[in-house]
Amino acid sequence: MSTTTAQTSTRTIRDGAFGHATGLACRECGATQDLGPYYVCRECFGPLEISYDFPAITREQIEAGPANIWRYKALLPVPADIELSPNMEPGYTRLLRADNLGRELGIARLWVKDDSTNPTNSFKDRVVACALSAARELGSTVFACPSTGNLANAVAAAGARAGIKTVVFIPSNLETPKQVNSAVYTENLVAVDGNYDDVNRLAGEIAGEEDGWAFVNVNVRPFYAEGSKTLGYEIAEQLGWRLPDQIVIPVASGSQLTKVHKAFQELIKLGLVEDKPVKVFGAQATGCSPVSAAFREGWDAVKPVRPDTIAKSLAIGNPADGVYVLDIVRETGGAIADVSDDEVRDAIVLLARTEGVFTETAGGTTVGVLKKLVETGQLDPELETVVINTGHGLKTLDAVTDRVGARATIAPTYDAFVAAGIA
Amino acid sequence: MSTTTAQTSTRTIRDGAFGHATGLACRECGATQDLGPYYVCRECFGPLEISYDFPAITREQIEAGPANIWRYKALLPVPADIELSPNMEPGYTRLLRADNLGRELGIARLWVKDDSTNPTNSFKDRVVACALSAARELGSTVFACPSTGNLANAVAAAGARAGIKTVVFIPSNLETPKQVNSAVYTENLVAVDGNYDDVNRLAGEIAGEEDGWAFVNVNVRPFYAEGSKTLGYEIAEQLGWRLPDQIVIPVASGSQLTKVHKAFQELIKLGLVEDKPVKVFGAQATGCSPVSAAFREGWDAVKPVRPDTIAKSLAIGNPADGVYVLDIVRETGGAIADVSDDEVRDAIVLLARTEGVFTETAGGTTVGVLKKLVETGQLDPELETVVINTGHGLKTLDAVTDRVGARATIAPTYDAFVAAGIA
Ligand SMILES: Cc1ncc(COP(=O)(O)O)c(C=O)c1O
Ligand SMILES: Cc1ncc(COP(=O)(O)O)c(C=O)c1O
Ligand SMILES: [Zn+2]
Ligand SMILES: [Zn+2]
Repeated sequence: MSTTTAQTSTRTIRDGAFGHATGLACRECGATQDLGPYYVCRECFGPLEISYDFPAITREQIEAGPANIWRYKALLPVPADIELSPNMEPGYTRLLRADNLGRELGIARLWVKDDSTNPTNSFKDRVVACALSAARELGSTVFACPSTGNLANAVAAAGARAGIKTVVFIPSNLETPKQVNSAVYTENLVAVDGNYDDVNRLAGEIAGEEDGWAFVNVNVRPFYAEGSKTLGYEIAEQLGWRLPDQIVIPVASGSQLTKVHKAFQELIKLGLVEDKPVKVFGAQATGCSPVSAAFREGWDAVKPVRPDTIAKSLAIGNPADGVYVLDIVRETGGAIADVSDDEVRDAIVLLARTEGVFTETAGGTTVGVLKKLVETGQLDPELETVVINTGHGLKTLDAVTDRVGARATIAPTYDAFVAAGIA
Repeated sequence: MSTTTAQTSTRTIRDGAFGHATGLACRECGATQDLGPYYVCRECFGPLEISYDFPAITREQIEAGPANIWRYKALLPVPADIELSPNMEPGYTRLLRADNLGRELGIARLWVKDDSTNPTNSFKDRVVACALSAARELGSTVFACPSTGNLANAVAAAGARAGIKTVVFIPSNLETPKQVNSAVYTENLVAVDGNYDDVNRLAGEIAGEEDGWAFVNVNVRPFYAEGSKTLGYEIAEQLGWRLPDQIVIPVASGSQLTKVHKAFQELIKLGLVEDKPVKVFGAQATGCSPVSAAFREGWDAVKPVRPDTIAKSLAIGNPADGVYVLDIVRETGGAIADVSDDEVRDAIVLLARTEGVFTETAGGTTVGVLKKLVETGQLDPELETVVINTGHGLKTLDAVTDRVGARATIAPTYDAFVAAGIA
């Protein structure tokens, strides 16, 4: 299997194509290689991650940038002129003080980072924007992904806007809203009979066979994954250039959690925030909780599972970054926990009723786990806490349709209103 | 019928409660009255509008504000400390250069102002934020609205976050996503057997009978409506403090169109942009096109209709601001046009496939009308044009479910992929 197929063969990469990125380093053995459409180490087949030589950068320079992720472009593997290429302009979403939810859960200082208002309503617009830049610089001709739903939405939309052919692969049992929300952007939505792990395997095969295909989370994954760092940068900036004491993050492949942690470390190294410990917590749904299980059992490896949960966007049974999640959580004094589908549903309604934020099952999982971590004493409710809402409730409506509804149906008269006893 | 019921009787209004607003002026006879929960003129029953004594304000002051509508708080009827009260922090949505759509329609310089990424995914979060501030300053105990759907979402969410009781009234035939998207935030979603105009009439009655109820678009309407000005402010700022040559805006009650026009005039008067003419165009769905019909026929009055269209969020048959819309459109050299439900559906897919923006039927109406205006020669394709997308496609999924879908369903194998002929 070739690992270079994201690149069309004749293309040379222009200077500055990847900003201040300097190379790719193996997370297992540390071996380095040149920047390009590579995602596994030549030496040991470990996963590759971007290395940088960051410039000196000030808070003011960042604050003078646009109200989207490109304000942090100096810290991402993208060219300095990234804003000139049509893209979705995601990010810089609201960090909401969540006093009502905090009161409900007994947490003194709580914030919700609300990524449901991104262009296609999940945090995936961030990672896809970075992958799109890589695909463009590599001269890729097809922009593709295997997806649990949200990623397909983001890839199909970004590709449409960028004018590049898109092909997105999803498990055929996915929620209708997520299917339509991809198909509206692309002619090439492909449903695959199987679960996400089957779809992912197929994508890896295609990536190895077809020329010029950039699978955002497969062969350009190192570039893609960096996009999640912007969640961490924004949280710090929006807190007034400080880090929170602890943060709760949903875990599917585990990429987001590792990158938010990395973002915090980078900000400390760059002198943009004061050094301080941040406890990192992970959230999974019980029906797909391989990392939570490993944490609980004290294992160093993650045992793959067959997912069975309503939190379909988190339903990755064989998470690529699971072991790195375990490392970070253990190292920082955090934890990983999981909640049942019923707790997910309850948490969706709880967040909506307290903060006016309608999250999807992934956010229900995260808020549900936050609640559980307080109850079990694993999370200190006196510390300043951030919880990330990564997606939108309109994509997983079915999760709450039998929990909420009209209180009454009345005739259009004042008498009918009075009789209904609402006043 | 009393017009003061939004206020609890004992409450005195604090100084600065409404910022630089100075009073309420009748749009028909010009009579003025004090600020308060009033919406019709004492003299002639005409609609009231907020008057201001604006301070000198600079671009830099605005740019130093938050990335939401409160950056313009000096130009809104809200207190200087508005950011301290829990609210949805809406606005400052993307203004996207739309070259692909422009190419498709033959328009040289086209922009999409995308309000679908607001907190509850429509421009209604802007107006509701201003109404919430008024309700709070007036000491209202219930935050309510009649709604075609989006407004109910926005009111229910904002009220939840603000910790005020909400009651939202909708036509009982509304799309499920819009119903659930309200019910998830509030216990008091009331479905009314009738169309929007029936629901609106009922709300007027309740407002007249019940104490302390702030109906955002009825008895606090003058405060509410000002929120739409922020769309105009943002477009000008995001264009680099200039006005476009022309703009296309959807019309239900007509409030938004009149307020975007007002915003442009205010910016000129304040010296924040250069004076120039801006042609204002209105968009309706043929199945509810009373203002478009009046424009076509050359009438000065708007004849109410019974709505029958998939563009339910625009289905107001008796538009409160219809005549003001006619005035503005005629005065600026614009036009109002309408498109069929099929054209609405086509336009939704067109916008998604060209720009990666998934709009609801209201946006389909607006983009469809933009296309039609070019075809009929009513809109000059050489002029710089902005089209406003006011809502999100996930709320009106049914409009496109039989137009788009999976291209193929395949087994999870490379052979099945090849056989499907997608590469
Ligand atoms: C809404 C949502 N939240 C969280 C995640 C988890 O992301 P990761 O794979 O980076 O752990 C996903 C992944 O698909 C997602 O769709
Ligand atoms: C999505 C959307 N766009 C536009 C409008 C029109 O607003 P107005 O009543 O201000 O004309 C509405 C009103 O409900 C709406 O929901
Ligand atoms: Zn290695
Ligand atoms: Zn009057």
